[in-house]
Amino acid sequence: MTRYYEDLSVGDAERRGEYRMERSDIVAFAERYDPQSFHLDEEAAADSIFGGLVASGLHTLCASVRLFIDEFVSGSDGIANMGGLGMDDLRWHEPVRPGDRLSLRVEVTEKRPSTSHDDRGYVTLDRTVLSQTEATVLSLVSYNIVQRRPD
Amino acid sequence: MTRYYEDLSVGDAERRGEYRMERSDIVAFAERYDPQSFHLDEEAAADSIFGGLVASGLHTLCASVRLFIDEFVSGSDGIANMGGLGMDDLRWHEPVRPGDRLSLRVEVTEKRPSTSHDDRGYVTLDRTVLSQTEATVLSLVSYNIVQRRPD
Repeated sequence: MTRYYEDLSVGDAERRGEYRMERSDIVAFAERYDPQSFHLDEEAAADSIFGGLVASGLHTLCASVRLFIDEFVSGSDGIANMGGLGMDDLRWHEPVRPGDRLSLRVEVTEKRPSTSHDDRGYVTLDRTVLSQTEATVLSLVSYNIVQRRPD
Repeated sequence: MTRYYEDLSVGDAERRGEYRMERSDIVAFAERYDPQSFHLDEEAAADSIFGGLVASGLHTLCASVRLFIDEFVSGSDGIANMGGLGMDDLRWHEPVRPGDRLSLRVEVTEKRPSTSHDDRGYVTLDRTVLSQTEATVLSLVSYNIVQRRPD
């Protein structure tokens, strides 16, 4: 059953999914959107503050959005997401390296109905990306527009 | 000349670059990282709150990072960026549609030397993405690590 605005409660929290960060994808992503040497070249990365090849933080963010859509929006119990307004407190805590497997924890922290559109409400989500070693690699707060249950 | 930490001053501001958001790229990006119908399918998008196909906000963010690297980091006067710590106040103000041409304005708003590593400092940047109609489509604050001038 689709989860509409009314079906979400502050405190709801779940962790789902697995997204494997392959070396070839890390390099291909960086070539396209974040061409810095520590995302592209093992030797240059060894001399960087990361000590080896690391995924673009933007790539980790993209992986987390793909997990969000696949696991929390598109599924049979998916949230009726109408769009996003923005994000805050986006922090890269640890580098992500080739072979890391990421999962996503989502917690509802706030909700309020729209005062101008009676078909929607605003929902604040804490999103945390964890690695296979349980390290938090990325965290952020997102502001989403969620459809209200149709009559 | 590479711009090191010492070369950046609070208030420095510049707008550079052009990134064209092609329809095929908008759909390909969404298929990979943000598969929601309003980024993928013109008919479904017509029925969404956007009234037509729009780029994933994440795609616009990726375009802005590519502009940042190409125009502000990789060039002959590029900033000696060592990595990113995070972002705040990320807001999508207007949807980006096929054919839009984006440019990036970057302003230095804060800087302080690292107290634990004498090879680097922390720089806060306001980044604003503008369209060809001068509309602000995305804004954010980023926290970057910038190399100090070597002896």
